[in-house]
Amino acid sequence: MTTDLHVYDTTLRDGAQQEGLNLSVTDKLAIARHLDDLGVGFIEGGWPGANPKDTEFFARAARELDLRNATLAAFGATRRAGGAASTDPLVRALLDSQASVITLVAKSHTGHVERALRTTLAENLAMIRDTVGFLVGEGRRVFLDAEHFFDGYAVDRAYALEALRAAAESGAEVLALCDTNGGMLPTQVADVVADVVGTLGLGADHDTRVGIHCHNDTGCAVANSMAAVDAGARHVQGTVNGYGERTGNANLVTVVANLQLKRGLPLVEPHRLQEATRISHAISEVTNVPPYSRQPYTGASAFAHKAGLHASAIKVDPDLYQHMDPKHVGNDMRMLVSDMAGRASIELKAKELGFALDAQSEADSELMKRVLASVKDKELRGYTFDAADASFDLLLRRELDGGLPSFFDVESWRVITDARGEGDALSEATVKLTAGDKRYVRTGEGNGPVNALDQALRSALARAYPAIENFELVDYKVRILDASHGTDAVTRVLIETSDGTTTWTTIGVAANILEASWDALVESVTYGLLRADISPL
Amino acid sequence: MTTDLHVYDTTLRDGAQQEGLNLSVTDKLAIARHLDDLGVGFIEGGWPGANPKDTEFFARAARELDLRNATLAAFGATRRAGGAASTDPLVRALLDSQASVITLVAKSHTGHVERALRTTLAENLAMIRDTVGFLVGEGRRVFLDAEHFFDGYAVDRAYALEALRAAAESGAEVLALCDTNGGMLPTQVADVVADVVGTLGLGADHDTRVGIHCHNDTGCAVANSMAAVDAGARHVQGTVNGYGERTGNANLVTVVANLQLKRGLPLVEPHRLQEATRISHAISEVTNVPPYSRQPYTGASAFAHKAGLHASAIKVDPDLYQHMDPKHVGNDMRMLVSDMAGRASIELKAKELGFALDAQSEADSELMKRVLASVKDKELRGYTFDAADASFDLLLRRELDGGLPSFFDVESWRVITDARGEGDALSEATVKLTAGDKRYVRTGEGNGPVNALDQALRSALARAYPAIENFELVDYKVRILDASHGTDAVTRVLIETSDGTTTWTTIGVAANILEASWDALVESVTYGLLRADISPL
Repeated sequence: MTTDLHVYDTTLRDGAQQEGLNLSVTDKLAIARHLDDLGVGFIEGGWPGANPKDTEFFARAARELDLRNATLAAFGATRRAGGAASTDPLVRALLDSQASVITLVAKSHTGHVERALRTTLAENLAMIRDTVGFLVGEGRRVFLDAEHFFDGYAVDRAYALEALRAAAESGAEVLALCDTNGGMLPTQVADVVADVVGTLGLGADHDTRVGIHCHNDTGCAVANSMAAVDAGARHVQGTVNGYGERTGNANLVTVVANLQLKRGLPLVEPHRLQEATRISHAISEVTNVPPYSRQPYTGASAFAHKAGLHASAIKVDPDLYQHMDPKHVGNDMRMLVSDMAGRASIELKAKELGFALDAQSEADSELMKRVLASVKDKELRGYTFDAADASFDLLLRRELDGGLPSFFDVESWRVITDARGEGDALSEATVKLTAGDKRYVRTGEGNGPVNALDQALRSALARAYPAIENFELVDYKVRILDASHGTDAVTRVLIETSDGTTTWTTIGVAANILEASWDALVESVTYGLLRADISPL
Repeated sequence: MTTDLHVYDTTLRDGAQQEGLNLSVTDKLAIARHLDDLGVGFIEGGWPGANPKDTEFFARAARELDLRNATLAAFGATRRAGGAASTDPLVRALLDSQASVITLVAKSHTGHVERALRTTLAENLAMIRDTVGFLVGEGRRVFLDAEHFFDGYAVDRAYALEALRAAAESGAEVLALCDTNGGMLPTQVADVVADVVGTLGLGADHDTRVGIHCHNDTGCAVANSMAAVDAGARHVQGTVNGYGERTGNANLVTVVANLQLKRGLPLVEPHRLQEATRISHAISEVTNVPPYSRQPYTGASAFAHKAGLHASAIKVDPDLYQHMDPKHVGNDMRMLVSDMAGRASIELKAKELGFALDAQSEADSELMKRVLASVKDKELRGYTFDAADASFDLLLRRELDGGLPSFFDVESWRVITDARGEGDALSEATVKLTAGDKRYVRTGEGNGPVNALDQALRSALARAYPAIENFELVDYKVRILDASHGTDAVTRVLIETSDGTTTWTTIGVAANILEASWDALVESVTYGLLRADISPL
């Protein structure tokens, strides 16, 4: 699918500036493959020469990456002040990267030229002309990143435009205007982009195009990118999941989804956009940055509904309550069960979990009434099911004909935690239970009481249910409810368990934090065994 | 400071729709106090009558909340179809809430009237007129939330406007246009708001004002809110931290900071906006939703710079690399991971706690350097002093001449929790310590391990320090940090203690949840004794 708008991803370069984000070369190659699957036009791989890891990335990319949609771009700076482009080692490294597109960062802000670069305004223009001209002469496509452009434009419009003109006249194909500090608002971006397009005469037919690169410091990165496109920009930069320094870069998936689904611009093939949610999460796995559930389009909560008020109407017509069909970005509508839920949301939730209930059938209607009563009763005592699908699944099964199968009977459990002097506290748990007519007494140790209980429970069940070896406790959350008097408070524990391929969350509520944790652990194991289709001994 | 723009917060109502967010009445009261400190004009407290928790909130708010800046608003719906406003139980509940502002949600989308509300278009208009008129007649200020307004306008502009007109003619003071499904883009919002303001003649001098309520499904909630203000809206709704269903509501702090710091609109007193970062984090502690570090203005990363290209230039002139001075929102520029505190804020904080430090004095300057190093080291390990003033006080005293007095020496502690069959788990703790040359061994019981530890510690100290009898643990919060692998996580515990007249908060951090709790308990008792001017035996 062709389009006149560049979709330019800089996750691997500018996105990697995010606090806490650290990518290996292998990580970068994996992300590049995901970006290619998403259908972006350009993947900025890094800064070869300046960073050994990035030099290696381009070397391995040339051998190992077989991109079907995207073109790889290498990022670098204009030549040094007073030097020559052809002999500048960093410029040579750009050529050596083999990337067919070179994105050159250049100064367009007089203050940055004089105070940060410490050279003259004229020399900076010469650096732009020389470097762009040299690389174009070597057969590369050159894109310019005009750093701090909007702030520079505010300080000295004429010079900012002069920097762009120098690049365009030397053969640059893109003049990307960067809001490097991220302080712009959409109206400012629109005005400046329109002025640049008009003054330099870079309309829709021109070979040179204006681009946009935004950061989210005012919470407007996406809107600023769109305002620029409306004003004539034909190249948009951003990052997956909005990764980037400070508040992040423009989220490229959000920008593409807005332009394609709301504005009808055909930027990527529809079946590729339908992979956006999967790809966004897969990239989170590579970066090890937990996915942000409230992220537009691809977040786990992006199409989740809680209000009971809405649920009955959603049954009638989902389109009344969602701004678009989530399947276009590969996401899904989810109903959250909460104390605001009515029967309609229980029915929808059950369906989502694979239980086909028919509100017209008398038996199912009775069942739903019992489930709703049970949910309300438990929520009154501090349970919340909107974050604990697995516990809701078990609650449903308890009410179904046949009830919940019993995998084991707990006789007792105990945890001891002690500390002496300055040493770390240690915890030790003992669990006694019966599974398949055999009694097990097992002890577990841990760096905390819940960890010790988890070890002891798993150890006691391992013989009877070996599948449990695959389960791992991956997240543990605690909340003290109604803590107006600390001692009477109720504790709510959420436990997330993984079997290596999927995760599920269970809940426990009790006055005693360890009892709540124990209940959530027992539910977690029970759900995991049911899910794996294992029968009770 | 006066302004003609309403800053209307709906964290307690629409924000509470967020997945995983569940607020007790006490939580809501705590958040309302923070919102008042922030300087918002209106605090929407909830839906009395529809939700028993919200009914209780308004009852307690009337007795306990002493708002200095904000006005409390109660949210509710127009009367039932076919009924009368004066006898509608939910409308009566709004009156009973005592709130002087009533925000009524009403339908303005023909599809929602016919398919979700299941009544006629005419009856819906009558419901608006009756309910607004009745409440205005009862002396209340009435704001209208026109639900699904933008989608309704697209389907049937005339009817959508008719719904607004019905409210305005009946005395509504605000007509808030809601992008309930969150699918709008800034240009659409601007066009629709301009049309509404123009067609209904609601210019800047009119008594009735147009308002805006946005959700972030296109990543444009903030930009949409600003586009509406540009087009003539004079009332902006949003939530702290952008809490809300799906992708969340417009982040009210971001909107206010943009309008005030970038556009020069005086919305809240500058010293209040300077509390924004602290308040945003304090509210996170109440909601127990981990703060989002990339959040504009208030995020921990919002002004953080990764070392590299910019580092030396930032030293020369920080303004070249930040879009504004972070102090305007109470945030700080950071060059390295995890130091939120600068020396200036330590100086301020110390002053606030009653330690007069003089940055000009060499001794104080050395002290501040040591405190800053200690804070940085502890924050790296998971401590946060934003919400734990008492622990920060102790940290300061440790560095002061003379150090922290020692009230007692702990030899060891132990907690045992066990459960048998269906009964509740019980906890028993034993503490061994020395106070004033006497050794005490005491056991405490509790409905949880922390409660038992608290009992045992107090029992062991009661003879030596009888003042401890007045201390009571009133709140206990737990957060698991870095929970990528549940078992290696670090636990942060915050304990709030009361002596009957005032409260203080201490912190403990450890791999073991009970060790973290113990550390916070020990700090709590130590601070309480210092505070009461009691000398160590």
